[in-house]
Amino acid sequence: MKIFSKILAGLLVAGTALVAEAQQTDSLIIRKLYSEALSNRSSYEQLRHLSTRIGGRLSGSVQAAQAVNWSKAEMEKLGLDRVYVQEVMVPHWVRGEKEEGKIVPVKGKKVAVSVCALGGSVGTGKKGITAEIIEVKSLAEVAKLGKEKIAGKIIFFNRAMEPSHVSTFHAYGGAVDQRSRGAIEAAKYGAVAVIIRSMNLALDDYPHTGAMRYDETVAKIPAAAISTNGAEFLSHRLKDEPGLKFFLKQNPQTLPDAKSHNVIGEIKGTENPDEIIVVGGHLDSWDLGQGAHDDGAGCVQAIEVLRLMKALQIKPKRTIRAVMYMNEENGVRGGLKYAEEAKTLNENHIAAIESDAGGFTPRGFGIDGPAKHIKQIQEWKKLLEPYGLHDIGPGYGGVDIGPLRKNSPETALIGLEPDSQRYFEIHHAASDTFDKINQRELALGAGAMAALVYLLSEYGL
Amino acid sequence: MKIFSKILAGLLVAGTALVAEAQQTDSLIIRKLYSEALSNRSSYEQLRHLSTRIGGRLSGSVQAAQAVNWSKAEMEKLGLDRVYVQEVMVPHWVRGEKEEGKIVPVKGKKVAVSVCALGGSVGTGKKGITAEIIEVKSLAEVAKLGKEKIAGKIIFFNRAMEPSHVSTFHAYGGAVDQRSRGAIEAAKYGAVAVIIRSMNLALDDYPHTGAMRYDETVAKIPAAAISTNGAEFLSHRLKDEPGLKFFLKQNPQTLPDAKSHNVIGEIKGTENPDEIIVVGGHLDSWDLGQGAHDDGAGCVQAIEVLRLMKALQIKPKRTIRAVMYMNEENGVRGGLKYAEEAKTLNENHIAAIESDAGGFTPRGFGIDGPAKHIKQIQEWKKLLEPYGLHDIGPGYGGVDIGPLRKNSPETALIGLEPDSQRYFEIHHAASDTFDKINQRELALGAGAMAALVYLLSEYGL
Repeated sequence: MKIFSKILAGLLVAGTALVAEAQQTDSLIIRKLYSEALSNRSSYEQLRHLSTRIGGRLSGSVQAAQAVNWSKAEMEKLGLDRVYVQEVMVPHWVRGEKEEGKIVPVKGKKVAVSVCALGGSVGTGKKGITAEIIEVKSLAEVAKLGKEKIAGKIIFFNRAMEPSHVSTFHAYGGAVDQRSRGAIEAAKYGAVAVIIRSMNLALDDYPHTGAMRYDETVAKIPAAAISTNGAEFLSHRLKDEPGLKFFLKQNPQTLPDAKSHNVIGEIKGTENPDEIIVVGGHLDSWDLGQGAHDDGAGCVQAIEVLRLMKALQIKPKRTIRAVMYMNEENGVRGGLKYAEEAKTLNENHIAAIESDAGGFTPRGFGIDGPAKHIKQIQEWKKLLEPYGLHDIGPGYGGVDIGPLRKNSPETALIGLEPDSQRYFEIHHAASDTFDKINQRELALGAGAMAALVYLLSEYGL
Repeated sequence: MKIFSKILAGLLVAGTALVAEAQQTDSLIIRKLYSEALSNRSSYEQLRHLSTRIGGRLSGSVQAAQAVNWSKAEMEKLGLDRVYVQEVMVPHWVRGEKEEGKIVPVKGKKVAVSVCALGGSVGTGKKGITAEIIEVKSLAEVAKLGKEKIAGKIIFFNRAMEPSHVSTFHAYGGAVDQRSRGAIEAAKYGAVAVIIRSMNLALDDYPHTGAMRYDETVAKIPAAAISTNGAEFLSHRLKDEPGLKFFLKQNPQTLPDAKSHNVIGEIKGTENPDEIIVVGGHLDSWDLGQGAHDDGAGCVQAIEVLRLMKALQIKPKRTIRAVMYMNEENGVRGGLKYAEEAKTLNENHIAAIESDAGGFTPRGFGIDGPAKHIKQIQEWKKLLEPYGLHDIGPGYGGVDIGPLRKNSPETALIGLEPDSQRYFEIHHAASDTFDKINQRELALGAGAMAALVYLLSEYGL
């Protein structure tokens, strides 16, 4: 018994030493991944190209097709085991001519304000719509006002994102129902159009687009966003001049679905090639800006993860894929397609990471998956905290990787969580341009994902 | 004994309950401090004024005097118990006419590059200096090259900040000896001027100034910074054309010391008024930009801490002071003066917090002080982590609060640690302007300091 204890103790010591040694190796490799990410500017230059040479790339657009070809070519340069595309049919909505929004006082001059059509909205007709405008703060207020007050009017949803939330995503979650369901609610009571205060915590002149929905049971009425400055101004005018009218003109169109693609690059695992780890972002963007943060950043970071593995000559034990999804913004067709293909091929995705919250300094990972997986990833905290990754715990994965949940309850869906303060200033607006990208913050995001991908590929889940 | 245990156990339970209740109250108050900071834009508007209406405010300048008057008036609006100034004599260095730097090839055209005089540098004379330029990477390399190679030349220090450090302050620490001591080292071997690669991790056209030193035992030679793009270009040209000359013209002047002031606002403690907690930033800035991040941000955040206390009607148990120090950039005379006065008055400073690392999202506090104090502050982590303040531990306080150490080994000197990625892009350069400030990031810094000041005032150290 004594001898057995000694052996056991010896084994424990040896085991602890092995764990310690492995952690030292891991720590060193993570250090090298970060050093390479911070020292090499190629993903920043890729994002410059994607943002400024290709530009905004809404699903179905020429630019979206260019982005597919470009990202495929970029990955082909890396000497990966496989680069391929997945065909997917996507919605094809086009904005058409520049929108017009004007405050129409009972007396005096019309005043132009900055508006844009929400994604998926119908048009107003060539002549536009002029109608009395009513300010509300919520969907519930529309129901409360009822048909008598709403019918024939333009409804102005003006509930601001709540600034007191530290996470701007919480503030977004608390306001975005106005954008996504405002047109449905207003149409139920006979409104002729809706104007939505932009989902933006800053006060500026950019209208922010974004997806909105219709309901087949009610009329489809035009929906536009107004800049936060415009919303403040309109609200003040309404206080002074009840009965104010508004003129809205926009003529976007929904064309037939278009053919597009997801773009995928892969490094085959050496020991467990059938266990797949995905890292990705979405290639499409809204049309107003350059889609630099949303989500060019996520795309070049995903490519960078593979480049880092090659640059450090890491041969991952499990298969790593960078996936650039198409159509996150208005349909998620790429994400659905990817999951569908994975199911058809009976692929085993142990984890999927998405970067779709901007190319800002990363602060952690949100994990959607079994508690045991979350626990295991949290045990890597001491390896990740030196890089500022403290917030590692249950959370949200991402829109594009979400469909993988249907394939398996086991897959860890992981969202990179960057600092969120600046995100909604540029989200879905003309201000989402390359000059808002910081090279080091972008690189840290790639480093964070590379570190986690490396650990996942070494140890599995 | 049994009864005694029971009583003891009961006391422990009651004690634990009290602690839990206190923490709940603390947590609620911190939540309110943050909500108010994030919802009220007045400190952002103050910074707009300080940056864009007053602008760069080097010690001794008219703008520095305006900043003193302005910040005093701003604090007087808050209904504090006391607002006062401390007179202090400060160095008065003026840049004079715009600097000129030109690459002078053996054949062909001169090429202008972007340079600026380092703070405190002497001039070149009206005609400027033209001499052969030699690139080095370190002070040691100058010594190695020796008099023969260095005498009569302009020395170009071109060691870049190391990008692989996650903390840009580490990268700064590893490169800034070139700026602070380059002129001394080069002059020892007979150089006629030095050109220093700007302390900037980004590649751009802004030269970054900053303090440099002379040594009375060697000649004072002109010292200038060159932009990182300029440094890269010059280095490339030197590789192709050894023997290249450089033309530098700058004529700054050191005038007699000028009268200036620290500005101080105070809320008297209700229970321990003699225990003082200081929160502050520095009012002076370099002259090239607007001093928005460095350190207008720290000043308006310090004022905001007092405003938050008043807005929430918190009556702090200990005395809280916001101090706007003068002359951090080139002399620390304000910090020295403040500590000297504190000593004369036998004041007991339990803690001093400084915000002088930019108005970016805060990530924690670095603490210089007795281990027991660090431990106590770390025990507040669970109250602060919900706000992204994870990095709380031993660290650096700040330049202006440093002199308080001589008064007492007990004072906790605490530096607010914001995200450092973007700081050196704007540090001491014309690019440090108000448009680089994010309203929410600035507010979070004020919230972080207000939370810590509140805990310090409640519990002492």
